[in-house]
Amino acid sequence: MTPPPEKESAAKEHIHIPPKEGRGIRVPAGSHFKCIDVEGAQCGDLFAFVQDDVREYQSAEHTRVHNDRLFPLIGEEFVTNKRRPILTFVEDTSPGFQDMLIAACDPTRFEGLGVEGWHPSCQENLQSVMKDFGFPDIEIPSPINIFTRIPIGKDGTMSWEPAVSKAGDSVTFRVEIDSYIVLTACAQDILPINDLDPSALALELLD
Amino acid sequence: MTPPPEKESAAKEHIHIPPKEGRGIRVPAGSHFKCIDVEGAQCGDLFAFVQDDVREYQSAEHTRVHNDRLFPLIGEEFVTNKRRPILTFVEDTSPGFQDMLIAACDPTRFEGLGVEGWHPSCQENLQSVMKDFGFPDIEIPSPINIFTRIPIGKDGTMSWEPAVSKAGDSVTFRVEIDSYIVLTACAQDILPINDLDPSALALELLD
Repeated sequence: MTPPPEKESAAKEHIHIPPKEGRGIRVPAGSHFKCIDVEGAQCGDLFAFVQDDVREYQSAEHTRVHNDRLFPLIGEEFVTNKRRPILTFVEDTSPGFQDMLIAACDPTRFEGLGVEGWHPSCQENLQSVMKDFGFPDIEIPSPINIFTRIPIGKDGTMSWEPAVSKAGDSVTFRVEIDSYIVLTACAQDILPINDLDPSALALELLD
Repeated sequence: MTPPPEKESAAKEHIHIPPKEGRGIRVPAGSHFKCIDVEGAQCGDLFAFVQDDVREYQSAEHTRVHNDRLFPLIGEEFVTNKRRPILTFVEDTSPGFQDMLIAACDPTRFEGLGVEGWHPSCQENLQSVMKDFGFPDIEIPSPINIFTRIPIGKDGTMSWEPAVSKAGDSVTFRVEIDSYIVLTACAQDILPINDLDPSALALELLD
């Protein structure tokens, strides 16, 4: 399928993220950024690191405590491992499936799924982007998995369902601390979360 | 209330963990250890670090993926951030409430809950034990919160309920990789998870 053209927008900066790749951007406190599913049914792994000290970063387990909730509602905050608000969830035009329970895919994940040889992964994408920012040896946070549909059963079981986001769906965040933002277009093509067809994302700095 | 005496046991090593404190032990692969709620209604934060490289440790977000489940069943494994099995869940004599969603309590958590001045916390206990093992600057993993009752509502909300474990209830694990095991008796006395009365735990190396 030919991807639809990415819409012209008034964004300050528009970054195209090819399938199975990652990109990053420095964002100042007070700005807003948008993560866009370009073709639909594509998950993304989103990370936020504090510019002044990249050992402080958005932390899933602290954010859950901060909101007493598995995933923040619109208007609620994501906090760091020092419990400082780093992002606020501003808008979600997707059907609303977001996850913060599962680790980024990595080489050992694909090895465990039977892949032989190297396979791109969100963890390596993250490490590559952060290395380019000057940080070759970061801690690997548990990601904000946007557009990712991992329903939890009554008995605590988790299933891996195809994303239902449509082309152009987006999630928007306000930045609360000067940060490095990294978004990777999930490389998972063995399990169906990207509908077995990993595609592109876009990252837009709005102001 | 006078705590009941801790039962004599055939354990190889018995470590008493006073209220709001933490203790650690080096354990070889193949051994078993037990975490005991001494007086009842007491949560514990459990951590496991690989002896050969403490940057590898039990990881909540990788363990959830490994089992496709929020918390392992008996017989299932906990894995590291490199997806290697580090512990197997062998026995649970408690009512079965365990959590792996929430961060360890720390100084900023108590500050946020309105506590003035220093308050003991599981994160500081962990850091102190690992410092004594020779590691003053560890990454802080998301803990295995034993006996901890955090029900999840249909809408993803989480609540903080008093533990219902009784005196003598225990959870037992087999060790799969030579590890440092750290257990801290949760210091939370503002929220009711320890029934507002933090008490002791015990850690037993069985073989």
